[in-house]
Amino acid sequence: MKKALLFFALLFSVTCIQAQDSVQIRKFYDEALVNGQCYENLRYLCKKIGQRLSGSAGAQRSVEWSKKLMDSYGFDKVYLQEVMVPHWVRGAKEQAYIIDGKNKISVPVAALGMSVATPKAGITANIVEVKSLKELDALGESGIKGKIVFFNGPFDPRYIETGEGYGAAGIQRFAGPSAAAKYGAVGAIVRSITPALDNYPHTGGTVYAEGGRKIPAAAISTLAANKLSSMLKMRKFPQPKFFFKQNCQTLPDAKSYNVIGEITGSQNPTSFITVGGHLDSWDLAEGAHDDGTGVMQSVEVLRVIKATGYKPKNSIRAVFFMNEENGHKGGLKYAEIAAANKETHIAAIETDEGGFTPRGFSFDGASPKLLKAINKNWKALLEPYEADRLVAGGSGTDIEPLKETVPSIMLIGFRPDSQRYFDIHHTPNDVFENVNKRELELGAASITALVYLIDRYGLNF
Amino acid sequence: MKKALLFFALLFSVTCIQAQDSVQIRKFYDEALVNGQCYENLRYLCKKIGQRLSGSAGAQRSVEWSKKLMDSYGFDKVYLQEVMVPHWVRGAKEQAYIIDGKNKISVPVAALGMSVATPKAGITANIVEVKSLKELDALGESGIKGKIVFFNGPFDPRYIETGEGYGAAGIQRFAGPSAAAKYGAVGAIVRSITPALDNYPHTGGTVYAEGGRKIPAAAISTLAANKLSSMLKMRKFPQPKFFFKQNCQTLPDAKSYNVIGEITGSQNPTSFITVGGHLDSWDLAEGAHDDGTGVMQSVEVLRVIKATGYKPKNSIRAVFFMNEENGHKGGLKYAEIAAANKETHIAAIETDEGGFTPRGFSFDGASPKLLKAINKNWKALLEPYEADRLVAGGSGTDIEPLKETVPSIMLIGFRPDSQRYFDIHHTPNDVFENVNKRELELGAASITALVYLIDRYGLNF
Repeated sequence: MKKALLFFALLFSVTCIQAQDSVQIRKFYDEALVNGQCYENLRYLCKKIGQRLSGSAGAQRSVEWSKKLMDSYGFDKVYLQEVMVPHWVRGAKEQAYIIDGKNKISVPVAALGMSVATPKAGITANIVEVKSLKELDALGESGIKGKIVFFNGPFDPRYIETGEGYGAAGIQRFAGPSAAAKYGAVGAIVRSITPALDNYPHTGGTVYAEGGRKIPAAAISTLAANKLSSMLKMRKFPQPKFFFKQNCQTLPDAKSYNVIGEITGSQNPTSFITVGGHLDSWDLAEGAHDDGTGVMQSVEVLRVIKATGYKPKNSIRAVFFMNEENGHKGGLKYAEIAAANKETHIAAIETDEGGFTPRGFSFDGASPKLLKAINKNWKALLEPYEADRLVAGGSGTDIEPLKETVPSIMLIGFRPDSQRYFDIHHTPNDVFENVNKRELELGAASITALVYLIDRYGLNF
Repeated sequence: MKKALLFFALLFSVTCIQAQDSVQIRKFYDEALVNGQCYENLRYLCKKIGQRLSGSAGAQRSVEWSKKLMDSYGFDKVYLQEVMVPHWVRGAKEQAYIIDGKNKISVPVAALGMSVATPKAGITANIVEVKSLKELDALGESGIKGKIVFFNGPFDPRYIETGEGYGAAGIQRFAGPSAAAKYGAVGAIVRSITPALDNYPHTGGTVYAEGGRKIPAAAISTLAANKLSSMLKMRKFPQPKFFFKQNCQTLPDAKSYNVIGEITGSQNPTSFITVGGHLDSWDLAEGAHDDGTGVMQSVEVLRVIKATGYKPKNSIRAVFFMNEENGHKGGLKYAEIAAANKETHIAAIETDEGGFTPRGFSFDGASPKLLKAINKNWKALLEPYEADRLVAGGSGTDIEPLKETVPSIMLIGFRPDSQRYFDIHHTPNDVFENVNKRELELGAASITALVYLIDRYGLNF
């Protein structure tokens, strides 16, 4: 009888906790959907500040405005965290065309981030098309020397999560130009990494191997890549050549900042849950989905917590990381300082996959047992919002360095619907108008709900 | 020992079936994502045919083209099913403004479908604002007679599924004008049923009570509704008046068609699984998401089945229903003929909630026991595609009449992500450019997968 009573008491208390959590989470969603401010904040960031590539005037303005925004919300602490960042500039607009006998066919082009410039007059050379780094290696120096390598590996549409397709095709952009340089290529052009067929060049960083040759590298649109590829197949003698000219350069490192806001925990003020995205963006547009949505969601999480009167036990931080796109210096600095200050970090959540409808979260390195416990305890609470896919997986570039410096931390990636992200990613089309208000707000509310659950229950199931 | 062997044999065979299903479903997705044709078919429907309101020349052209399209795919049967449909026409573009003393403030307006016209000179009258039918009833004849009723109930953003918000706010549009007429109103204007704040009027059908007075009714944009509402609050003496003029009329019923394609079942040719959407659209745009995506997905389901070489046991039909928007006559006709021919129908699936990323399906009237069995058997197969929310819920307007005429049928609604649908629903903005290729294709593949599972296992768990 005693046992039975204990059982029912326990069941009752578990049910009450669940009911209380359910009510609290509903409050977060209502606040985000009815009084949400992230959409209008994003409008300001996109339309009044715009592009904010590391080291640029836009980046500096975005830092100043972000700090003011956090100050206006009356968080317990708001501060800047200084960090030196690479300062790459695109310079005058690039030019590119296919030379087909006497015809010049113009090609939408954008230098890859961190690329070197072409000579002032541009580069004209024969083209060698490859679809992978393996094909490049097979051709070797004899097939490549003196040519422009055209990396034309397609984005595989069969991946359901487009992020996986991006990773698979993206290796050409990250590592291709440097690999081509090794074989004596004079330049590299890369098919834009997107499943969409369009006329936008998608920029993005490339990485030169330490101490290796640096050759100019640019992205061309997928439609142009298809055209070029079919011309190369059809016109064998003489083959079309390619011309491109770009004016980018890397200036000395610049001083910049992570922007941090904090609600101090009522019980464990030196124990942290971080939620963040990156404030910097590529320079071709407004960095709306990449990653204006992520930073505006992060600050919204703290605003929603305050507005609904929830008092977190642990300290909750919103971090706007600087320099995700071309150096990761902001993330590295945050991890370095967290370790130097011997901070306890329970978890960090990154939102950097666009402001689309939430589907769930991925837990980096979570054991099957932990994942099972997380699902058992929390899935039902997130299911009414269809944000309940709690799976193993990656987190985000900005928070990853914490894995090294704060080993006990759980790194978590916010997972929105991925279908549209790479259509606009790193293009002139990544603008505010392509963000949906409700999708953005639902994401902010979902992250708030997870922060709440971690704050309340921790992750030691 | 024998029991143990039997157990393992059973386990092995269940596992094999699951593995085989999993391979087959993967084939459907690959076919839809790599060789998909629904996106280009939709482009044709939207850009070469465009609006196709019942009874219009566009509707007739869409019927003819759809039949040709199905013929081109070599389905076992392709035919038209004659049906008489209402023929409502908008006439010359509507005009509306707020009269504020000497100022006239122009208002984006669109007559509601099936509405009567205003007198040729338009209507000018005082305005009475209500936010619900209850408020209308409370005012009664003394508060309403001779006035224009302004239905301004907002779309509640707290619903996670926007379809629920649409249903809740939509009652004002469906039933409001007729109810206002009862109290002597001279006209009705309705806040557009959308969570978005924009300048589009969202049209849609209104229903006059049988034998009741008919007053002209129109939708105005949400921004104009907000402006009008705040002016009514601020300017008490004299209050602003409203003017609107519309030229719509209902012509005699027109002859039209459902378009039907069929793959005949190898074992049970007279047993059917139907998948459909509606071919007609409102006249303001191209009917891209409503419901060009649905019909193009439906035919894609049959194409994908054929292309992957799957031979269904039962007959699979793609049905393009006519007249969903303002009469439901196509759905009624299909149900009537199914009954008259004593056809056996296992299930009908409707896709009419936009061509967005699939999330799952809702089963109309499924018992908790059946739902549990469906989830137990099929959820894991759809989970890799994140189309595995298999829940109780509604199906679709076109297939609902089958509930009466073929009582054993299971009605199923395809459930894509709902966040963006009502931003563009029934507006000039429902155009091809707002459809994402991958989202559309994933939907088609998900429906194919469900059709396959129902074909293979039925729904009698």
